[in-house]
Parts: sequence; structure tokens; C-alpha cells
Amino acid sequence: MALLAIPASELLDRFASPDPTPGGGSAAALAGATAAALVVMVCRMSKTRTGDPAERARLDQALADARTAGDQCRRLVDEDSAAYDAVIAAYKLPKASEDEKAVRRRAVDAAVAVAIDVPMRTAEMCRVVLGAAQAAAENGNPNAVSDVRTAAALAWAGLRGAAENVLINLGTGGAPALRDHVDGLQRQADASLAALGLAPAGPAPAGDR
Amino acid sequence: MALLAIPASELLDRFASPDPTPGGGSAAALAGATAAALVVMVCRMSKTRTGDPAERARLDQALADARTAGDQCRRLVDEDSAAYDAVIAAYKLPKASEDEKAVRRRAVDAAVAVAIDVPMRTAEMCRVVLGAAQAAAENGNPNAVSDVRTAAALAWAGLRGAAENVLINLGTGGAPALRDHVDGLQRQADASLAALGLAPAGPAPAGDR
Repeated sequence: MALLAIPASELLDRFASPDPTPGGGSAAALAGATAAALVVMVCRMSKTRTGDPAERARLDQALADARTAGDQCRRLVDEDSAAYDAVIAAYKLPKASEDEKAVRRRAVDAAVAVAIDVPMRTAEMCRVVLGAAQAAAENGNPNAVSDVRTAAALAWAGLRGAAENVLINLGTGGAPALRDHVDGLQRQADASLAALGLAPAGPAPAGDR
Repeated sequence: MALLAIPASELLDRFASPDPTPGGGSAAALAGATAAALVVMVCRMSKTRTGDPAERARLDQALADARTAGDQCRRLVDEDSAAYDAVIAAYKLPKASEDEKAVRRRAVDAAVAVAIDVPMRTAEMCRVVLGAAQAAAENGNPNAVSDVRTAAALAWAGLRGAAENVLINLGTGGAPALRDHVDGLQRQADASLAALGLAPAGPAPAGDR
């Protein structure tokens, strides 16, 4: 059954169960979907920041982006759990003979590739949501500024959580292009957070330590 | 109807509707509840970081903390929407006569006080969840490290979002003690994030600009 079809309190219970899925990857996608929904709410309000028609055009674009990315995040809640379940299933394949070992190895590699791709897409979608939240903060109803700022923080956390899931599934192997892509998304997200004045106080500059 | 009793996808639709509730305050509490559930999952796993019995004791404490704070966050999802609805209702009271104005002013003040207290408690509970996530990261199953790191990012975002809701309801008035309390929670959360190596890259140190 689709995870988002069950009551929200039961979904939380599923996260809390000691079963490995749903886990952090699905929670990251849920955070992205929640953030997208808040951005959609603010973009649908008739009031814009100053009433300038250019603001309405930018909010319509942010609305379209948040809807698309939010729909993807909703699907990724299930996709992430399915991907991780497939990895576990592949590891359980028999490995008595060399043939079985080869089959198992290929199955594990294929399942892990999906378990890297899914949270990568979650991170990409959270990046889109964060951009839309930034546009909503700059152009939307000032009374809803705490909603879009909450959305931005949640989308940042969703991206960060998804990135953690990409990295743990990449393991200690190579894949420098994938690592660079994750780093780039993370840097963009950090910059958006800083632009909104939401970045945590960083460590003291080196000179002060 | 309790917001967490409806299917998760419908809850997301409710966030996305242009109605003001549920909004960022409830989304922040949901993020805290999701983060708490992930911490509970990891603390319930039989495997600890190295197998040291002291780790199990610390995980049991983190489990208790995450359960308590998670239960509170679940309740705060509804409480936040109810508190904001009460503010809107108070503003709609009649204000034709001086008597009516006085009654309305007292009703608004009382409702706003609750709408400040609720997200403050959400921020406090997210702080507890973040501490439990840190303990789970330090003592828990290394295979679940991406789950607790995702939980930490989500709890940080929940605290940040809740703080935004406290501040917007405080408005431009005084209340320095409440502002200091929010700042303190935020600084503790930022420190936990940094301790886990999850803090965003801050702006360049002043000397570099």
C-alpha cells in the first residue's frame, strides 16, 4: 500500500518501527513534499508582496515548480522504501556456487544503483522546492513569510537527508561525478538558506580559534 | 478531525490549500514528529555502534526522549492549527463600540499568547529530538547513520520553522525574554548540527570579504 495513503499517524509509526523501511530516504522525500505544499499554499494566496504584477508572474512560476517537485517527492516516499527493500532482497540471494555469487553480485549492484538514484532525485526535487520557497519569500504575501521560511528550512533538511542516503549507498567506492553532483546540490541549498537569513551560525572564523 | 488521522496525502493537500491552516507551525511539528520516529527506529535496533553496554544505556535514554518529544510533536500539529484559527476568530469579533473593542482586544491578546506558546513548545520538543538524534548517531547502529543524520536535519528544520512562527506572532513588540529563549534554542540546535558535521557552509569569514 502506498505510504501516503495510510493515516499520517500510522506513517509515523511505520518510520518508528525497527524495520529498515520506511527510513531516512522516505522521510527526506516527505519533508520535500511538505515544504512544496507550504510553498503552493502561499503562491495560491491572492495577495502578493507589494501588489506589483511582476510578483504574480513569479509566484505563478514558483507555484508550477513547487507542484511538479512536490508531486515527485510524494512518489519518491514510496520509491525510496521500495529501492531499499530491493537491496535487502538482493543481499539475501543464495551465494553457494560461483554462478550464484555472480548472479547475486549483479542483482546487488543493480539494486544499489537504484538506491542511489532515488535519493539523488529527492535531493534534486528538494532543490527545486527550495528555489520556489525563495521566490515565494521574495514575492509573496508578507503575512505568510513564516510559512515559506519554514518550507525553506524543511526543503533544506530534505535535501540534506537525501544526500546522506546517496552517500551511504555510494559507500567508500569511487563515483566522483555523483559525489560532485551531491556536493553541488548541497552548496546551492546552503546558499539559498543563507540568502533567506536562515543559515545556522557557523563555527568561528579560523582566526578566532 | 485530528490532522494526523487523515491519510498523509490528504494532509499534504491541506497544507497546500490556500486556507491559512494547517500552515508552517503544524508542518514544523510534523517534521519534529518524523525526526523523532526515525530516532526511535534506530534506538530500537538491537545493534549498537560497537556493542559496548554503555551505548545501549544511552540509546535507551535517547529512545525515551524521542518518544516523549515525538508524542508532543504529534499533538502540536493540531494545537498549532487550532491556535491560529483562534487568532483569526478573535480578529473577527465585532468592534463597533468601545466595549466591543475592549472585548476583542482581550480575546486577540489571549489567542496570540497561545499562538506564541504552541510553536515555542514545538521548538523545545525539536531541540529534545535533535539531542536524541545526536546520541543515536554517537551510540547507534552504524548502518543507520543516514537515518539519524536525516532525523537531525529534520529536527533542526522543525525547530527553525517553529521559531519563525514564534517570532511572527511576537510581532515587533517587546518580549525580550521570549526572544532570548528562541535564540538560545536556535543556538543549541545550530551547535548540534555543527557537531554532526551537518551545518551548511557559512558565509566567508569577515576577513575574506
